[in-house]
Amino acid sequence: MLSTRVKDVIRDIPDFPKPGIIFKDITPLFLDAKLSEAISDDFVQHARSLNVNAICGVESRGFLFGTIIAQKLGVPFILIRKKGKLPGTTIAYSYDLEYGSATIEMHHGDLPKGSRVLIHDDLLATGGTAVAAAELVKLAGSEVAAFSFIINLSFLNGEEKLKKHTDEVYHIVSY
Amino acid sequence: MLSTRVKDVIRDIPDFPKPGIIFKDITPLFLDAKLSEAISDDFVQHARSLNVNAICGVESRGFLFGTIIAQKLGVPFILIRKKGKLPGTTIAYSYDLEYGSATIEMHHGDLPKGSRVLIHDDLLATGGTAVAAAELVKLAGSEVAAFSFIINLSFLNGEEKLKKHTDEVYHIVSY
Repeated sequence: MLSTRVKDVIRDIPDFPKPGIIFKDITPLFLDAKLSEAISDDFVQHARSLNVNAICGVESRGFLFGTIIAQKLGVPFILIRKKGKLPGTTIAYSYDLEYGSATIEMHHGDLPKGSRVLIHDDLLATGGTAVAAAELVKLAGSEVAAFSFIINLSFLNGEEKLKKHTDEVYHIVSY
Repeated sequence: MLSTRVKDVIRDIPDFPKPGIIFKDITPLFLDAKLSEAISDDFVQHARSLNVNAICGVESRGFLFGTIIAQKLGVPFILIRKKGKLPGTTIAYSYDLEYGSATIEMHHGDLPKGSRVLIHDDLLATGGTAVAAAELVKLAGSEVAAFSFIINLSFLNGEEKLKKHTDEVYHIVSY
């Protein structure tokens, strides 16, 4: 089972980024090229089954598998980054965090209008960033066909928020 | 010619991140899956010819092609990130910038000792970050077999600095 292999490799890092939080470190997945290929192929199969024709990857861990999935599918990959990181003209979406707010951006005009988009990131927690990414995709005149994540922290109920955009919320492992 | 196709797609963004600087935006390369595949294949061929058996990608644009190259070669991919971004125990290297200094990190123990490493990033400018990445690789007990970049800003002479580590400095386009 892919999910078992992935869980065996993900590292628990206690007290990161804050005391009391156990961080799920996905970087060891990339130390095993065969495993990272199996994960990519799983994501690609999911995206292909939904006729996805563009991938939006969320900075920066969403870039790690995002570009591989896009290349294997043969579709455009569009970067979603924190405010101020993309050099060109952007569209932006701001959203509330526990304390304060955050803004993410996408280059204006890079996502072909009317695309069926997969939004990809490493981890689904409360879903704030993923929902903001979905709003960006809609602002750009496209449709969210699916979300995919390596990890779903299911006790945070992020999936509920995403279902306003699409029922297709995919993850490889869940905690 | 791949370099011509790449130059045609890279966007010049004036006054980013500061007035007077013309930023070379590589993100449009990922809008064309066939072109991004041709670039990856070119990087892979270069790495294979040098018997590279690990890739270190520098945050965050170095992740974009870095994971693809590693997966195609079938070798580990190790993230090099700015201080504080990696959750586990790290090794760190600090270097001087025009004003102040910067520190980059790699997870301790993730790069197999004695590896022949390719350090990959999107752009070679003055070479400060790439040299620091090379020092990290040596601290980890491995050898820098090569550097690869999409772009070399040759008028900044970064290549000279890198040649202390290896003569194998590869780029697809040069300005």
